[in-house]
Amino acid sequence: MNINESSVKNLGDYLRYLSTMGIQRANSGHPGLPLGCADIGISLYGNIMKATAFKPDWINRDRFILSAGHGSMLVYSLNYIFGYDFKVSDLANFRQLKSKTAGHPEYEHELGIETTTGPLGQGFANAVGIAIEAKMMAARFNTPDFELFNYNTYVLMGDGCTMEGMTNEAASIAGSLGLDNLIAIYDDNNVTIDESSNETFTENVKGRYEALGWEVLESPVGTDIKDINNKLKTLVASKSGKPKLLIVKTKIGEGLDKLKGSHSAHGAPVGTKEIAFLVENSKLKSIAGSTDQVDAQDLIEKQLVTGDFFNVSNFSNDLGSVLETRKSYYKEWEVLFNQYKTIYADKYLELMEYKSTGLSDELRDLLINFSSKADATRNTSAEVLQIVAQKTNKIIGGCADLVASTKATVKGAKFITKNDFSGRNIAFGIREAAMGAIGNGLALSRDFIPFTSTFFTFIDYMKPAVRLASLMKLNHLFVFTHDSIYVGEDGPTHEPIEHLGATRLIPGLYTYRPANDMEMGFAYLEFMETEGPAVILGTRQVLNSNLFNLNANREDMYKSFKKGGYVMFDSNDKADVTLVGSGSEISTLYEAKLLLEAKGKKVRLVSVPCLEKFEEQSSEYINNVLGDAPVYFMETASHRGNKVFYDKKIFVRDITTFGLSGNYKDVATHFGFVADAAAKEILEFIGE
Amino acid sequence: MNINESSVKNLGDYLRYLSTMGIQRANSGHPGLPLGCADIGISLYGNIMKATAFKPDWINRDRFILSAGHGSMLVYSLNYIFGYDFKVSDLANFRQLKSKTAGHPEYEHELGIETTTGPLGQGFANAVGIAIEAKMMAARFNTPDFELFNYNTYVLMGDGCTMEGMTNEAASIAGSLGLDNLIAIYDDNNVTIDESSNETFTENVKGRYEALGWEVLESPVGTDIKDINNKLKTLVASKSGKPKLLIVKTKIGEGLDKLKGSHSAHGAPVGTKEIAFLVENSKLKSIAGSTDQVDAQDLIEKQLVTGDFFNVSNFSNDLGSVLETRKSYYKEWEVLFNQYKTIYADKYLELMEYKSTGLSDELRDLLINFSSKADATRNTSAEVLQIVAQKTNKIIGGCADLVASTKATVKGAKFITKNDFSGRNIAFGIREAAMGAIGNGLALSRDFIPFTSTFFTFIDYMKPAVRLASLMKLNHLFVFTHDSIYVGEDGPTHEPIEHLGATRLIPGLYTYRPANDMEMGFAYLEFMETEGPAVILGTRQVLNSNLFNLNANREDMYKSFKKGGYVMFDSNDKADVTLVGSGSEISTLYEAKLLLEAKGKKVRLVSVPCLEKFEEQSSEYINNVLGDAPVYFMETASHRGNKVFYDKKIFVRDITTFGLSGNYKDVATHFGFVADAAAKEILEFIGE
Repeated sequence: MNINESSVKNLGDYLRYLSTMGIQRANSGHPGLPLGCADIGISLYGNIMKATAFKPDWINRDRFILSAGHGSMLVYSLNYIFGYDFKVSDLANFRQLKSKTAGHPEYEHELGIETTTGPLGQGFANAVGIAIEAKMMAARFNTPDFELFNYNTYVLMGDGCTMEGMTNEAASIAGSLGLDNLIAIYDDNNVTIDESSNETFTENVKGRYEALGWEVLESPVGTDIKDINNKLKTLVASKSGKPKLLIVKTKIGEGLDKLKGSHSAHGAPVGTKEIAFLVENSKLKSIAGSTDQVDAQDLIEKQLVTGDFFNVSNFSNDLGSVLETRKSYYKEWEVLFNQYKTIYADKYLELMEYKSTGLSDELRDLLINFSSKADATRNTSAEVLQIVAQKTNKIIGGCADLVASTKATVKGAKFITKNDFSGRNIAFGIREAAMGAIGNGLALSRDFIPFTSTFFTFIDYMKPAVRLASLMKLNHLFVFTHDSIYVGEDGPTHEPIEHLGATRLIPGLYTYRPANDMEMGFAYLEFMETEGPAVILGTRQVLNSNLFNLNANREDMYKSFKKGGYVMFDSNDKADVTLVGSGSEISTLYEAKLLLEAKGKKVRLVSVPCLEKFEEQSSEYINNVLGDAPVYFMETASHRGNKVFYDKKIFVRDITTFGLSGNYKDVATHFGFVADAAAKEILEFIGE
Repeated sequence: MNINESSVKNLGDYLRYLSTMGIQRANSGHPGLPLGCADIGISLYGNIMKATAFKPDWINRDRFILSAGHGSMLVYSLNYIFGYDFKVSDLANFRQLKSKTAGHPEYEHELGIETTTGPLGQGFANAVGIAIEAKMMAARFNTPDFELFNYNTYVLMGDGCTMEGMTNEAASIAGSLGLDNLIAIYDDNNVTIDESSNETFTENVKGRYEALGWEVLESPVGTDIKDINNKLKTLVASKSGKPKLLIVKTKIGEGLDKLKGSHSAHGAPVGTKEIAFLVENSKLKSIAGSTDQVDAQDLIEKQLVTGDFFNVSNFSNDLGSVLETRKSYYKEWEVLFNQYKTIYADKYLELMEYKSTGLSDELRDLLINFSSKADATRNTSAEVLQIVAQKTNKIIGGCADLVASTKATVKGAKFITKNDFSGRNIAFGIREAAMGAIGNGLALSRDFIPFTSTFFTFIDYMKPAVRLASLMKLNHLFVFTHDSIYVGEDGPTHEPIEHLGATRLIPGLYTYRPANDMEMGFAYLEFMETEGPAVILGTRQVLNSNLFNLNANREDMYKSFKKGGYVMFDSNDKADVTLVGSGSEISTLYEAKLLLEAKGKKVRLVSVPCLEKFEEQSSEYINNVLGDAPVYFMETASHRGNKVFYDKKIFVRDITTFGLSGNYKDVATHFGFVADAAAKEILEFIGE
């Protein structure tokens, strides 16, 4: 049973009350969206979506993404009303340290929060990723008689998300792929914080989305519950083969008295007088038992002190049997699924593989023992990627139109297209921002382990998504190549300088800069063994061949590698100098080492494939690796600013200016990243 | 006199030859765009644009931006043909170290390169900024009888730029502002590196731009010179009040034999056989005097060795008097301008102020001596901004819909609108990526000094533009507020952690994190006195009042400030510990200092408003400032990874995890950024 119009109105008003109360008590938050979209939310959960708090991790649940994450009280209130693991006290503790109700929604399936949102546009692109995942899972597991995966993804966005360019990128991809399982709702209230959207946002959103290949309907009145409900149903049922958008003309601050339609309702508590107005003009009046607005305000002020907001049990009649109906969607699917297990036992086992974590011993062995010929590590990375992709179907991904350069692709697998989602490669086009966030969307269910790839310098376009992958601990692999000034001819716009240091600073992310085949295999292995994202960097240029195919006890080496830095070549006697670097600089330092040894010097060479991990080790380990000799540290990257604190016994050869256009050897020579210049500099440094 | 169709064809083919030769000799580069757009380029320069190599910095010149910067040989060849300071030898040294012809175009007015492009989408958004600047200058200086500023901005973009989301943001702004002085040309060849655009880029670009408020025409054949020319003229003449787009269906590799239409022509040399084909099928055949393709190939191979490409003098007849015509545009304007000087002497003087650099003694005094009440430094920043804006009209700018929060606005000035560009504020909407790049566009002519502003965490959305501002040394001020975990309730998505360290790493950029009113005044002063961009950070929260309105010799203090770090409070006797930090941490450390002093400790407090500058000082200065005592360094920012190299006598209190949602005081307490916890930690560190 669904929810009728008057119940939507009652529950919508209750949601408005809960949201404004939570924000009032926190004295912080954004009431605008929950007030304007309350009825939409109730309609969606009550009448449209197939999902249930009974089984929040149901693999075929419809997803709801609040891309306008600042309206978080909408989703907390909705999820509370619809039985997810929220209590009134959680709502009353909105935005308090360690509460379940953070300022912006934080990814937690159990709570019905499908993804972390806040930075605008991200949630929308996540939703595109989820919709792609649904199609890809359907292509793998649905059969003519069993529609195991047919869920829809609903995403609510405001003016901000709609303005963000990444949303356009993601919407263009969605249009090209014909994602008819994606339904976006645009809360079109024409009011933003600075009250400026009338002058700065005059475009025809409907026309734009139609041009992007979407089916678009409009609801002219945000409180016309019947119309919204019907149009959502029309879109869900539509077989247009297009992604769908419902534009709802809402009023910001709907339900309030003086603040209705005002930008002041966007991002600050509305005050108890306005909440009292809300109570007095809704079913809450009878529940409150109040006789006028003054009484109501008094009551509200008391509730704000105690946190004892009106409970959802007051709305049992309005909710009716909808929670049961929602549960029944899952139960029906479960019956189907149990049949499927028997009839398609092989497919069921394959599905369980998608659902499992960890990696096989076979794959682990292959990665531990990976050896290859000397090459540019972008090619080495591609070789390892093929091994991983062959051994687990979970690996999928794509590039921002740079497969030819970054080589990140699943060889022999198809690209997904509008009519065929059985492939494993995704052509994102030249849309890095959306690529990052769609990759996150693909990682949310943890069925797939996506990789995304571009030149390292263009991490700048996808940084917001890299950050969110790290915050959500998503298994999303970022393969960035052309990792330094050795890019050469393309010049400073294409040569990363600050990016290596900057990427390392991101919490929850590890940046690997492998120096050879062995470290590349290890980097992939560690990514596969660990929860969370990683950046793996590859060079454009070929590295020193002596570093490849090294004879080594691989298990021991992997233990060292996991510590982020280790002695790669030691001197027989006490070292005169310890050379430290990462990636391609190990090649340069290795060559410098030979020059120094020819002059009778004792040299230790330390590889630091992951500086963050190295820093996490005990000072004893770090001191043992670096040793007592002076340290010459070389990286084609910026350590600008930090060097002021570096130990005096460390000489740093880095780059703090932009790169240059020229043959990569000329560029490297210009910046001093060649063995002979390094050897000379090292000798001077150690006082010879 | 303009250039007739057959001459466009001849010069177009010559441009194709020059471009493919330069790329062949460099063995690196992207011939696809110059081949496909050669005729468009010649038409534009020869028949449409009013600009001249005679006066490349003419303030009313039409601008040409190659947003698809990888096609750089197009602009080098064009500018060579049209008399800018390029020689054949420059084209032959394409992509060689320190040549004029870098891999991607690098900003240099003298060479007719209006902006640095390469990262896709940036040039397009720069062009929007330039078009806004033209309108703003016109609003300030044009009179009914003198159209001093009426230049057009032409921007050439490919599939990549068109896919990038930031282009949509910028195009939406352009539409809202009715920038009818902006003419974009879309090189629509449906071929990208990965050959994938047919599947991943199916949108209706014309429909999208029309929805964004643009006037759009199409040229169905990229070699139909007459049609392209006519449509460009139609667009230029149109009084639609809209920005304009010409979509030209080109063939990648136009002019070649086997590679015509192939994605292989996009980004690699085409080979001498193809160039020979080009020569044999163009006017170059007679110039070469070759009788067949084998001869031509032989000749080309010789030219590639010597770099002695065919000279433009062979095309004097085709160029005719066009260079004179182009010069005459300037000359006519110059006559006008000389009259204007006399008739509108005041306005002329005002214009000269826009054209001047440096700042007045009065403004310098005001900034040196700026004092204010204790406050959140976002407010302090706004106060200083008002002083600067009052004293120089060059200051203009805006926010990504966060004026209410970042406070970065010129008070009392209007927002520019479609019908009135006399204002000084720009409402960018929630479009950070475009804001950054439009700001760069506004800074290119150096008439204006733009500021752009958002929350610090959202620098992530505009990082590519921040980088390019730094590369081009643009006077673009980035005002970022809400600079740390003290944001509080909004939680981890809105709390910068890695951003401070990451911003510092960018070459050519200084990041200021002022601790009080004095440092804020100094930061603005130093930005105004220095060429290049700066980031100025502001706090959301109020800082310690004892740090404001300090009694100090301001000239001395400014000298110290300019060294990036200085002793703010010294102990009378030899210090037991030196406390070091920046921004809001100076407040915390100041309070910790009082607690430590109450326990009889001698404490030095060092403020480091600009760590990069501090690092640039002599080791003697740095050692003097830090002193001999152990150093306790506190920043609500990540130093992750780097700390492995930090001096053992330095204790670092930073944050290497994500922030949390909660009241800012609770969050700060959780992370140990409060005076009492710090004091305790400090005592432990110094061994008490």
